[in-house]
This record gives sequence, structure tokens and C-alpha cells, in this order.
Amino acid sequence: MADQIENEKKKLISSLMRKIPDFPKPGILFWDICPLLKHPEAFSAAIDLLTSHIKDTYPNVELIVGLDARGFLFGPGIAIKLGVGFVPVRKQGKLPGETVSIPCEKEYGKDMLEMQKDAIASGQKVVIVDDLLATGGTLLTSCKLVEQQEGIVLGCVVLFELTELNGAGRLPVKCFSLLQS
Amino acid sequence: MADQIENEKKKLISSLMRKIPDFPKPGILFWDICPLLKHPEAFSAAIDLLTSHIKDTYPNVELIVGLDARGFLFGPGIAIKLGVGFVPVRKQGKLPGETVSIPCEKEYGKDMLEMQKDAIASGQKVVIVDDLLATGGTLLTSCKLVEQQEGIVLGCVVLFELTELNGAGRLPVKCFSLLQS
Repeated sequence: MADQIENEKKKLISSLMRKIPDFPKPGILFWDICPLLKHPEAFSAAIDLLTSHIKDTYPNVELIVGLDARGFLFGPGIAIKLGVGFVPVRKQGKLPGETVSIPCEKEYGKDMLEMQKDAIASGQKVVIVDDLLATGGTLLTSCKLVEQQEGIVLGCVVLFELTELNGAGRLPVKCFSLLQS
Repeated sequence: MADQIENEKKKLISSLMRKIPDFPKPGILFWDICPLLKHPEAFSAAIDLLTSHIKDTYPNVELIVGLDARGFLFGPGIAIKLGVGFVPVRKQGKLPGETVSIPCEKEYGKDMLEMQKDAIASGQKVVIVDDLLATGGTLLTSCKLVEQQEGIVLGCVVLFELTELNGAGRLPVKCFSLLQS
């Protein structure tokens, strides 16, 4: 019964992912989450299902790290539901104070990713959240940022995984995805 | 009693705003929200207080519009609590599909802001959410984006207002801020 409800929620969420060809450049099929964000029950269900997965799999999680910018749409809601703090990873120059930076190769180009230097205490247990797992570049760089501060990455969690790009294979930890293509 | 609890929550939230001088450029005092994001009770209280304000002031709100990227930290949580949809405003080139764009003058430079063309239905009632009201440039541009799609902006809501910059005076609607300096 619980499984059936979960499957129906996933079906609803999946129906609200819109495929847009040739964005942001020719040959790329972009999965647009905007229809999902506009549907409060489905958006809320997505956050609930991701939260439940983390609660069940990593009950000792102490921090959620979320990636600029679409990871910010999911990470804070999950962190608040879990009762843990939220730490942003951002593109270079966006975070004030002392930061640590690591370069990152992405599906559509290169970026430098940053985290505040005091963001994570040594030994703190972290789950990293983003909307999408494609080639895994940003998640991999975020794992490195956490580890550079002696944090422990328990796992990564995303809404959607493009399995054919095999991003999960590049990550040092398991990556759970609610939906796959 | 309710007022006292609210004031204590606001005091806690305020104590977690960190002032960082000369960021992102000399002479600018930056209000860093990262300590707030790391404190789950305070972060949750901030979202609750902003949500309550919207519920009380604009009970007929139909959509929350949130601004890239820090507005994404607050807007979705508020939208889900209100049971309404969330629509992102993003920097140029980030949103797939057909978009409308308007140039925006900001405290630290210029940007082109975009919204998806089908994001808002004619007559839909919108509240715009961001973390900070400084000069009001991004909020003003977002109001214009909503109005260009024949949406109705009921008001703007931010966590924090730099009152000396008088951004509120540039906006066509009221802007509520939880905290001011």
C-alpha cells in the first residue's frame, strides 16, 4: 500500500518533467523541472520522498549540502524536514568570507565551485543534494569540497538521473535518484 | 504572547546574519545568510514567519515567484507551506523553453532576468520572494516580468532590507521585510 502510494507520487512527479530538446546547446535534451515546481502537491511529494530516503538510509546525517542554483530548490526543504543545517555550494565569487574552491568540469562547460571555509566541521556527516545527475561533475566537485574540510560524505541524492551518462560511476559515494531516464 | 515568541524568533534569526565588509567589492557591507541556513530551527522559523505574513496579508495568493539564486532558498519552502506553485526568475540563458526577458540594474552590476513564457496565467495573483531588498533592481524587474505576462503582483517579501538604499520606494507594490538595517 505504501509502495503503491509512493509509485503514484513518482508517476505524478515524472509526468511533470518536461523534455526540451537542444537546450542549452544543440544535441542536449534538457529536463525542465519548472512544471513540477508549479504543482505544489507534486513538488512537496518530491521533497518528502527524497527526505524519507535520506532519513532511512543515513539516519546519522548532520548537514545537507545543496548546489547552486537548482539544488537550492530542494536542499533547504529537505534540511528543514530532517532538522539539520543547510550549506550552499556556489559558483566562484558568490560566497562571502573565506572560501575553499575546486574547479569542476560540467556537461555544458567549466566552473569553479566554492564553499565557505567554516561551513563544515571535521567529521561532520553530509548528504549532498541536487536536482539532476548528468555527468556527475558538480556532485564530484562538491564531494571533494566537503572532504577537503574533513567532512564525511554519506551519499548524494538527486531528483533525476540521466543514467546513460553514467555520472554515478564517477562519484566516490552512492547517488540515489528518485527518477531515471 | 504570540508577539513575544515572534520577537524571540526574529532576534534569533537576526543574530545569525553575519556582516562581511567589502564584499563583493570594496565599500559594500554584505549580509551573509549562511549561518542562518545552518541553523535548522532559525531557518525554519524564518520561512514560517514569511509564510504567515503572506497568508495574513495576501490570502488570495496563487503563485510564489522566487529569484535566482538566494530567493530559491526561501521561495519553494514558502510556496509549499501555502499550497501554491513556485515560479523561478533566472539570469539569462538558464531557463529552457520560450522565455520573456527584461534588463535589470543591480547593486553590483547589470543582469538580464528571465521567466518562462507560460509561467504565469493572465490574472494570476503573485507574491515575489527574495532574501534581500537592497536597491530593489531585481525585485522591480521581476515585477515587470510578472506584469508583462498579465499576472498581478500582490506584493514582495524579503528576509532582510537595507533601508538606507530605499529600494522599497522603487517598487510598484509594498515590500515586507522580516528584518531591517
